[in-house]
Amino acid sequence: MPVFKLREIAEKINGKLFGDGEIIIKDAAKIESAGPGDITFLANLRYKNELIRTNASAVIVSEKMEVDVPIPHILVDDAYYRFLQVFLMFYPRKEIAEPGIHPTAVIHPSVQIGEHVSIGPNVVIGKNCIIGDRTKILANCVIMNEVQIGAECLIYPLVSVREECIIGNRVIIHNGAVIGSDGFGFAQHGGIFHKIPQIGRVIVEDDVEIGANCTIDRATMGETIIRKGVKLDNLVHIAHNVEVGESTVMAAQAGISGSTKIGHHVMIGGQVGTVGHITIGNYAQIGAQSGVSKSVPDNETVFGYPARPIMKTKRIEAVLNQLPDLYKKIRVMEKELNILKNTALDNSSS
Amino acid sequence: MPVFKLREIAEKINGKLFGDGEIIIKDAAKIESAGPGDITFLANLRYKNELIRTNASAVIVSEKMEVDVPIPHILVDDAYYRFLQVFLMFYPRKEIAEPGIHPTAVIHPSVQIGEHVSIGPNVVIGKNCIIGDRTKILANCVIMNEVQIGAECLIYPLVSVREECIIGNRVIIHNGAVIGSDGFGFAQHGGIFHKIPQIGRVIVEDDVEIGANCTIDRATMGETIIRKGVKLDNLVHIAHNVEVGESTVMAAQAGISGSTKIGHHVMIGGQVGTVGHITIGNYAQIGAQSGVSKSVPDNETVFGYPARPIMKTKRIEAVLNQLPDLYKKIRVMEKELNILKNTALDNSSS
Amino acid sequence: MPVFKLREIAEKINGKLFGDGEIIIKDAAKIESAGPGDITFLANLRYKNELIRTNASAVIVSEKMEVDVPIPHILVDDAYYRFLQVFLMFYPRKEIAEPGIHPTAVIHPSVQIGEHVSIGPNVVIGKNCIIGDRTKILANCVIMNEVQIGAECLIYPLVSVREECIIGNRVIIHNGAVIGSDGFGFAQHGGIFHKIPQIGRVIVEDDVEIGANCTIDRATMGETIIRKGVKLDNLVHIAHNVEVGESTVMAAQAGISGSTKIGHHVMIGGQVGTVGHITIGNYAQIGAQSGVSKSVPDNETVFGYPARPIMKTKRIEAVLNQLPDLYKKIRVMEKELNILKNTALDNSSS
Repeated sequence: MPVFKLREIAEKINGKLFGDGEIIIKDAAKIESAGPGDITFLANLRYKNELIRTNASAVIVSEKMEVDVPIPHILVDDAYYRFLQVFLMFYPRKEIAEPGIHPTAVIHPSVQIGEHVSIGPNVVIGKNCIIGDRTKILANCVIMNEVQIGAECLIYPLVSVREECIIGNRVIIHNGAVIGSDGFGFAQHGGIFHKIPQIGRVIVEDDVEIGANCTIDRATMGETIIRKGVKLDNLVHIAHNVEVGESTVMAAQAGISGSTKIGHHVMIGGQVGTVGHITIGNYAQIGAQSGVSKSVPDNETVFGYPARPIMKTKRIEAVLNQLPDLYKKIRVMEKELNILKNTALDNSSS
Repeated sequence: MPVFKLREIAEKINGKLFGDGEIIIKDAAKIESAGPGDITFLANLRYKNELIRTNASAVIVSEKMEVDVPIPHILVDDAYYRFLQVFLMFYPRKEIAEPGIHPTAVIHPSVQIGEHVSIGPNVVIGKNCIIGDRTKILANCVIMNEVQIGAECLIYPLVSVREECIIGNRVIIHNGAVIGSDGFGFAQHGGIFHKIPQIGRVIVEDDVEIGANCTIDRATMGETIIRKGVKLDNLVHIAHNVEVGESTVMAAQAGISGSTKIGHHVMIGGQVGTVGHITIGNYAQIGAQSGVSKSVPDNETVFGYPARPIMKTKRIEAVLNQLPDLYKKIRVMEKELNILKNTALDNSSS
Repeated sequence: MPVFKLREIAEKINGKLFGDGEIIIKDAAKIESAGPGDITFLANLRYKNELIRTNASAVIVSEKMEVDVPIPHILVDDAYYRFLQVFLMFYPRKEIAEPGIHPTAVIHPSVQIGEHVSIGPNVVIGKNCIIGDRTKILANCVIMNEVQIGAECLIYPLVSVREECIIGNRVIIHNGAVIGSDGFGFAQHGGIFHKIPQIGRVIVEDDVEIGANCTIDRATMGETIIRKGVKLDNLVHIAHNVEVGESTVMAAQAGISGSTKIGHHVMIGGQVGTVGHITIGNYAQIGAQSGVSKSVPDNETVFGYPARPIMKTKRIEAVLNQLPDLYKKIRVMEKELNILKNTALDNSSS
């Protein structure tokens, strides 16, 4: 593993250095486990007391926290983010793909391949595809006809990209994901479901990451769109004609039904489901396992099945916790009320 | 793209032509976006007013709606279904498979292959399989021993079919789906789970469509059966010994537990789960994300977690929405009741 | 199919034979469908009366049930488990893999391969992998660099194992499963999500079974661990840094969020979701579709969304069923209370 002077690290992350810049840093670690020679970070005031206890040789600290730091340190705008950059200095991403085109790959002669592309064993690429510079397509992937893939993408083994889909630059697609499968559309006639042709496609913009075994359906007509910087966890399902806005994040096993439009910077929890043809506003947040049956405004946090504004759901939950007791109380009140009624009746009839 | 006379279209879909049959139709589009030269359709009276506004040159209309149509039109039994047929005249399905058997396919010599079959690169087919006429098996699929696949099937890349399974005619299986994986069965003995051998198989009947990355488990003994015309969306899980009745439809990420029997023409929403060993009646409907813990009668619509008849769930939901207010009201009533009790006590003791 | 004398079967399963040990047994079947020549089992007193009705020639019975058995029988410690052993005598597991290494497999020269290993067509194995004796890796699997796989594993087609993961002995991995995909971790900086490098790995211990299309993410740092004897059904998601304890069982489509620690012998129902960073105690049980938002103690059974101790959830459910009626009752009580208040007011003012 490489070693760096603290000064070199400060320069790399544009931070203000305090203390001896000549000390040697050998590794990066979390504050509670860091030892001598390690650099660590403090991004949350909750862990402030760790600063005194830590054995780390240096620490990256967020400027705005305004804490006293008893050891050599670097002040930065965003300590966690800057620590990640330092982490990558010690742990550069390992090369997992062999350079060049493996002889077992089956590539149609019409395919245009950029420079320094890596195509693994048994990869199959159909007619008229375009593969951008420095993109890596790992073993046993299948890229069907007329697909365009941008530059510097990393496509893990056993991924499928169906015909005519477009993938941007720096996109990461994990093993087993399927891009461009048919939308789920049928017309019922005489008790039989007839397939509606799915002639649209999927567009995946730059810097998207798609988890293992996700499925993203092509549009019936037009496009299913995954905008710039979207991050999808594993086993997520995106139906036909959905649009997912920039920098939106979805946890594992979420499912978005057809033609729903999701804003930018939305956070969607695991196993969330939405109905089709609704809109999820920008910066909305949807709690795990929620069932979203109607549109969600910008900035709203919803939760529950059915999904409601989170404070409403929490108030309902609080009462539900007491519901069996409440039930008993009502039964008691009912009896008492009856006694009072009878007493009142007795009084009035007396 | 091909062009047709309106008369030709009317003949193709067995409709009654009204207006000039010689006009040239160049495309098919939705009523709100159709322009001159386009044919569109009206299948729902809600969109009736669009008939006046539309720029389409012709429209396909359902007979039974009995609307006045101010432009050339074709009366038919089912406007949406007939429009789909017209749509396919303009957008015939693209050929995505190369004819013949790719030289990289690994096919056991005992396999019987029908006429005009297409087998893609790196497909692996085991012993004694039978592949029907005009079936297409795309790149990198694995078909294990003793599998039978009917005629005119379309099997997308990276699909697995495990040994001894039977697939009917005109079946479509999307990328990454797994047919015939072991059922999930174990016998606990001494704190350890021992595998119960899964020696059954899966039968998929004609005209079934199976979504991307679905998993359909083989039976422990006997058969897991997917009946004629069933349509499964992506990431659906069907456990061992399940039977799914004719023309039943399941949305994405639904999961059916072992030995459950689902009737015909059932509609199952996304992310629904059912317990095992129950029966879902014919024409039943199950709302999205429902948890079905007991059998559902024919024609019933259920919803919720746990699933209840939908009107019941809706009534409960309505009260839940008011539950925090109801709670406060009960607290107020309790106090008032106590005051009245004390008053009554005072009166009686006075 | 082979045949056995009843005596031979009794010896094989260490049972006490009662009746004629020389009779010939030709098959093994369930008690309600067994016919002459078949052996069956009785493990549950509920089915006791079937003993009189059955046409089976012999029956395996659990000692502790102390029932009168009118036909030849074998007394054992655990009738179901012993029956499974007998079942395997009649239905030995079929050989589904060809011996040896298929010539189309792409195996890096540095790979160490044990004895009697089977590697199927188009399998790709990266640098420095170690494959144990008698392990079978079926068609089109991709094993990336530095992976270790133990002895007697069965890896079905189209499975991915990412770099550096470790798989124990006798592990079964079903089609399409992904072991070692990146954990889902991002640092937000300037409205953009930056990938946190995922440099850990997955360790799968001995005797684990992983269902079709499951996804098990590698740790951010350190290890995601699936302990000895764990059984995962299809489409299960295990996030980064999760630990699943020995002999824990998860039904289909369950999802476990990052850094959650699950004890041993836990039973997790289908479509269950848990938040991250919690602990599920040993022998805990989690009902299907539950949403687990906080730690669960040892031996606790929880259920619901949100998950609560099951008796609590059931009491709440019982009241929910009556909630619409309760609501009406409260409205009536409110009116009656108002009448009484007014009466009391009248009385006191009179």
